Amino acid sequence: MIRVCVAVCLSLAVAAPALAQPVPDARTMQTLRDRALADDTALTLTRELTTEVGPRIGGSLGYRRAAAWAVRRLRALGYQNVHEEEFPTEVWTRGEERAELLGEYAQPLRVTALGGSVATPATGVEAELAVFPTWRSVLDAPEGTVRGRIVAVLQPTPRAQDGSGYGATGVIRRDGPSEAARRGAVAYLSRSLGTELGRHPHTGSTRYADGVARIPAAALSTVDAETLSRLSTLGRPMRLRLTLTPTLDPNGRSTNVVGEIPGRGPLANEVILMGAHLDAWDLGQGAQDNATGVAIIMAAATLAAEATPRGPRRTLRVVLYGAEETGDSGGAYAERNAATLGRIVLAGESDFGDGPVWRARLPGALAGQPFGRAVSEALLPLGVFTVPEPASRAGVDTAALFARGVPAFNLNLDGYDYFDLHHTADDTFANVDPEDLAQSVAANAVVLRLALTADVDFRAAAPPPAPPAR
Amino acid sequence: MIRVCVAVCLSLAVAAPALAQPVPDARTMQTLRDRALADDTALTLTRELTTEVGPRIGGSLGYRRAAAWAVRRLRALGYQNVHEEEFPTEVWTRGEERAELLGEYAQPLRVTALGGSVATPATGVEAELAVFPTWRSVLDAPEGTVRGRIVAVLQPTPRAQDGSGYGATGVIRRDGPSEAARRGAVAYLSRSLGTELGRHPHTGSTRYADGVARIPAAALSTVDAETLSRLSTLGRPMRLRLTLTPTLDPNGRSTNVVGEIPGRGPLANEVILMGAHLDAWDLGQGAQDNATGVAIIMAAATLAAEATPRGPRRTLRVVLYGAEETGDSGGAYAERNAATLGRIVLAGESDFGDGPVWRARLPGALAGQPFGRAVSEALLPLGVFTVPEPASRAGVDTAALFARGVPAFNLNLDGYDYFDLHHTADDTFANVDPEDLAQSVAANAVVLRLALTADVDFRAAAPPPAPPAR
Repeated sequence: MIRVCVAVCLSLAVAAPALAQPVPDARTMQTLRDRALADDTALTLTRELTTEVGPRIGGSLGYRRAAAWAVRRLRALGYQNVHEEEFPTEVWTRGEERAELLGEYAQPLRVTALGGSVATPATGVEAELAVFPTWRSVLDAPEGTVRGRIVAVLQPTPRAQDGSGYGATGVIRRDGPSEAARRGAVAYLSRSLGTELGRHPHTGSTRYADGVARIPAAALSTVDAETLSRLSTLGRPMRLRLTLTPTLDPNGRSTNVVGEIPGRGPLANEVILMGAHLDAWDLGQGAQDNATGVAIIMAAATLAAEATPRGPRRTLRVVLYGAEETGDSGGAYAERNAATLGRIVLAGESDFGDGPVWRARLPGALAGQPFGRAVSEALLPLGVFTVPEPASRAGVDTAALFARGVPAFNLNLDGYDYFDLHHTADDTFANVDPEDLAQSVAANAVVLRLALTADVDFRAAAPPPAPPAR
Repeated sequence: MIRVCVAVCLSLAVAAPALAQPVPDARTMQTLRDRALADDTALTLTRELTTEVGPRIGGSLGYRRAAAWAVRRLRALGYQNVHEEEFPTEVWTRGEERAELLGEYAQPLRVTALGGSVATPATGVEAELAVFPTWRSVLDAPEGTVRGRIVAVLQPTPRAQDGSGYGATGVIRRDGPSEAARRGAVAYLSRSLGTELGRHPHTGSTRYADGVARIPAAALSTVDAETLSRLSTLGRPMRLRLTLTPTLDPNGRSTNVVGEIPGRGPLANEVILMGAHLDAWDLGQGAQDNATGVAIIMAAATLAAEATPRGPRRTLRVVLYGAEETGDSGGAYAERNAATLGRIVLAGESDFGDGPVWRARLPGALAGQPFGRAVSEALLPLGVFTVPEPASRAGVDTAALFARGVPAFNLNLDGYDYFDLHHTADDTFANVDPEDLAQSVAANAVVLRLALTADVDFRAAAPPPAPPAR
């Protein structure tokens, strides 16, 4: 309230150009959008990270090269206070992975180990298959009915722009191995949680429940899941051999890479934090997941800061998280920076491909305020609509901040095709759309530009901290 | 000439139904087309062969199961004289295959061994890369400039409906390893001869020249070829490790599977031969290459014969070749049946995916004759046009018959997207289009139906035998 008053007073006391600092005019925003749409920084960053680094599981050698690249690039873009913040994380390394039907219908199936899976013996595990069309049918299976078998769950993941289809089937990957083990299974297969009908299986982390046997777990390609589904209608027993040889280093280290564009003046202590995870699964080049997110926030923050003629009033901080896929880099960041989290007044994240951005959500109280209306107007020419519903946690890494009361905003990326590529070998630079990427940069840039100078108390718009997770 | 005269006499002597035997009326052809378009025999056969058998390199266990399946299915469809004709062939078996950039740009690359490639040592071959943008630039490389290196040729294969793009770059796979070895290379990589930008590398046979060192050879996925291309612009040396562990059995055996629908009457000794190769590469399920071809000719021949109310006048023979990809099953067939090749009056082949058929070509002299006009009219409602240019060899296996003077006809399948899948892990049942498949069956069925009863001397339309290949 006080701040708004100060701004009003200033607006009376100074000439128009000064007023344009806290509230940029329509022309300034148009110029920023045009510049962002024509800027190739994000495409260059994406190309470099996918081509010169490639796969980069948190804590791996690939990640070390990615972090070194990020430090170099942040500095080259003019970021200050560029540094890495180390944290402990398990480092899981994929090994051989093979599955083959034996006997009557002998043929190889394309699989990939779920992240965190234990290994089979070097010669594999061989058993009869127990095929389930849905997750529900596994849960309903009487205890013991799958004893000694390899469970295969063939439920497909629905396509959804907002990723809710992946949300719905996530449990099959996450809880599947332990639910199968509880019922006596010796190994676990799920249909890939991807939406493309193809032969690239889709990895992602699973988690073993305490006190339950840890059985090897892999994803079948969607095509191979359909092959199994067709074979299962023939009513004959099917035997399968699964070989997975991953290893786990429980004492690994990864880093979050941080860079800042410092604000000037009385609001410089307020931090607007933009996050994106730098780590990526090992099968592809980590293009849509998440070189594009890294590139979008680095380019957008740079453009937004450059578009404040007298420099940002608030500090813009970019955090490139180092173990979104396999650890808790967001939690590590929040813990390490616990004493100064109160300075972070707004947090966003980009982790859903190259875009385009289709929808914006702000901290609840802001949607109807002048800041919210300015955001809405600035995004509309990019085809982005702003809804009154309050923003969610923004992303996996921002969730730890959000849970601690940091206000978040969402620029939702269109994920209709995202899960065609996500977590597969086909997540490569070849599938990045430069136009979508540029639109995503532009959308982030205009919101950051407004937030950097707006006379608004972001903290007052924050929801109360969520109760601690159990 | 004599036959035509007999037909004219008969047409005067007998009632309309009898006349309908040699020259089916428009309504008969319409009924056949409609029936073929609604028939699911080909789809069922394709599903069975891809799902219950899958990969089936000639002479492999998979091929044995495929041949057993074919014998069962031909008999079930009413074919007679169903048998296998064994022939010797080398059996090449894929092993491990890995490639990884080392050092500064370390990342794994997706490769697959070229068919027939020798193995690397178990620990791989490691060397600096010599990258060439085009095949021409390899040939122009001075002797010795690639000594001790791994040659990588990155020229892309153009997309073409008639497959001529693949024809143009085929030399890169076929002759590449020996040309590189002549210049001192220790291993060879080519960009996949596929048209899709993706991560499934594309296999296919290479051949080593006599008197030249045999070096390991693999195809890079098109995406990985583009990654190498981008890295090569950075001007730094790149090291790569390639590991391939295939094996070769020089004393293998495969079979051609044969079935007949016998003709009746004086022309029964004349054989119309329809071929399709039953073997398939090991990476996918051999769907477009060539379960669909097998299914198209089996279904079309059955439908054509059933549409001759008093039975075919000529004998319809289906030959499912057993080593198109890795051997010379067409040559083996021609050699074994040398004494009776004169009985084969017309030969066709289906080996270019599920279709649709877009163009027809007949033995040269037939295009302008009543038979040619009848074919043209019967195909037009299916969207197929008939051109006056004489048919080519029809396919790889039919080439041996064509070279020995057997008249061939072509029903060209639309291959615009064929090389997106062909010879890759993604050549699966999931990518078969039931409508295209049914159109291809219908097109083949109407041509066979006309050929089974037509009063035409096919042999007189044959080109003179080609001079023997050198």
